[in-house]
Amino acid sequence: MPLKLSNPIHFGNFVVNSQIFYVSRHSFAFVNLKPLMPGHVLVSPIRVVPRLADLSPPEVSDLFLAVQKVGRLVERLYSATALNIAIQDGRAAGQSVPHVHAHVIPRKDADLDSCGGSDAIYDMLDGEDGDLAKHQRERQRFPKPDETDRVARSDDEMAKEAEWLHKEMSKTEE
Amino acid sequence: MPLKLSNPIHFGNFVVNSQIFYVSRHSFAFVNLKPLMPGHVLVSPIRVVPRLADLSPPEVSDLFLAVQKVGRLVERLYSATALNIAIQDGRAAGQSVPHVHAHVIPRKDADLDSCGGSDAIYDMLDGEDGDLAKHQRERQRFPKPDETDRVARSDDEMAKEAEWLHKEMSKTEE
Repeated sequence: MPLKLSNPIHFGNFVVNSQIFYVSRHSFAFVNLKPLMPGHVLVSPIRVVPRLADLSPPEVSDLFLAVQKVGRLVERLYSATALNIAIQDGRAAGQSVPHVHAHVIPRKDADLDSCGGSDAIYDMLDGEDGDLAKHQRERQRFPKPDETDRVARSDDEMAKEAEWLHKEMSKTEE
Repeated sequence: MPLKLSNPIHFGNFVVNSQIFYVSRHSFAFVNLKPLMPGHVLVSPIRVVPRLADLSPPEVSDLFLAVQKVGRLVERLYSATALNIAIQDGRAAGQSVPHVHAHVIPRKDADLDSCGGSDAIYDMLDGEDGDLAKHQRERQRFPKPDETDRVARSDDEMAKEAEWLHKEMSKTEE
C-alpha cells in the first residue's frame, strides 16, 4: 500500500506526495521524474528552502540520516555496489528547483565501462536543469544517453515505484 | 597560527595534519592536493571507513554539520554564490581513496559560462581517481582544463591555505 501522508509535501512549488516513499521528522525521499539511472532518487528537507546553509542543525542531521538510509535501500534493491550523492547547492552549482535536494544514484561496477566512466553521471545531472540543459546542448561536448532514456515518466509509473520502495523500506525498518 | 592537532589524522593511509583547517568531534576538513577550483576542500569522518553506510548516526550528523559550516566558509572566502557537494560513495561511484569524503566546491555565476557548464565540475572529479583517470583519458570524451591547473601543490602551499582557512573559521566561531 502507498505511503499515507496527511499533508501536501512540496518539492519547490510542486506537490509530490504520490512520488514519496519515505518521510522522517524533517525530510522526505521521492522518486524522480527523469531518473538518470534506475533507482536515482531525491531526498529533501520538508521545509522549502534553497540552500543547505538555510537548514537548522536538526534538519541537516535528519536529511543526511535519510540519505544514508535511502542510499542503503536503493543500493540493495537496484543491485548496485556504490552510490553517487550530489547536491547542487545554489543556482551557480546547477540547482534547478530552489529547494535543497540530494541526488542519490546507485552505481554498479559495470557502469565504469559504459557511457563515459563513473563520473559521467554528474555530467548527466546537467539535464536536470532547464537553463543549463540548453547551455549543455549548445556545447554538445559530451555524448549523452539516448534522449528517449530521459522522457518524463508517467504519474502512475512513479507512484508504483514509490509504493514498492516504501514497502521495501518498511521491511528494513521492521 | 596553524591548527594544533595532538594526534595524526588520516585520510585513507595518508597523514594529512598539515592540510587540516577544521576538526569537529567526529570529522575534519582539509585542503586539497589538486583542487578543481579555488576553495575546493574535502570533509571526512575521523574514523577511516570507506562507505557512508559505515558511519554511526552521530558521525553522519557531525560530518554534514561540518560540510555545512565549511561550505559557508569557502563560499564566503572565495566570493562564490553556490556550492557543489559530492560524495563518491564506493569504487563504482568513482571513489579513489577508500575513506568517506565529501567534496565541497565553491561555484560562481561566472562558472556557468566557462568550461562546460556548471556540472562539468563533476566530470572533472574523474581526475581525482587513479584508475578512472586512465579510463577517462582513453575516452577523451570531454575537454579537460589545462593539466597544468591540476599539478599537485606543495606541502607549504597547502599548509598556508589551511592556516588561513583555520584562522577565518575561528573568526566565524567567535
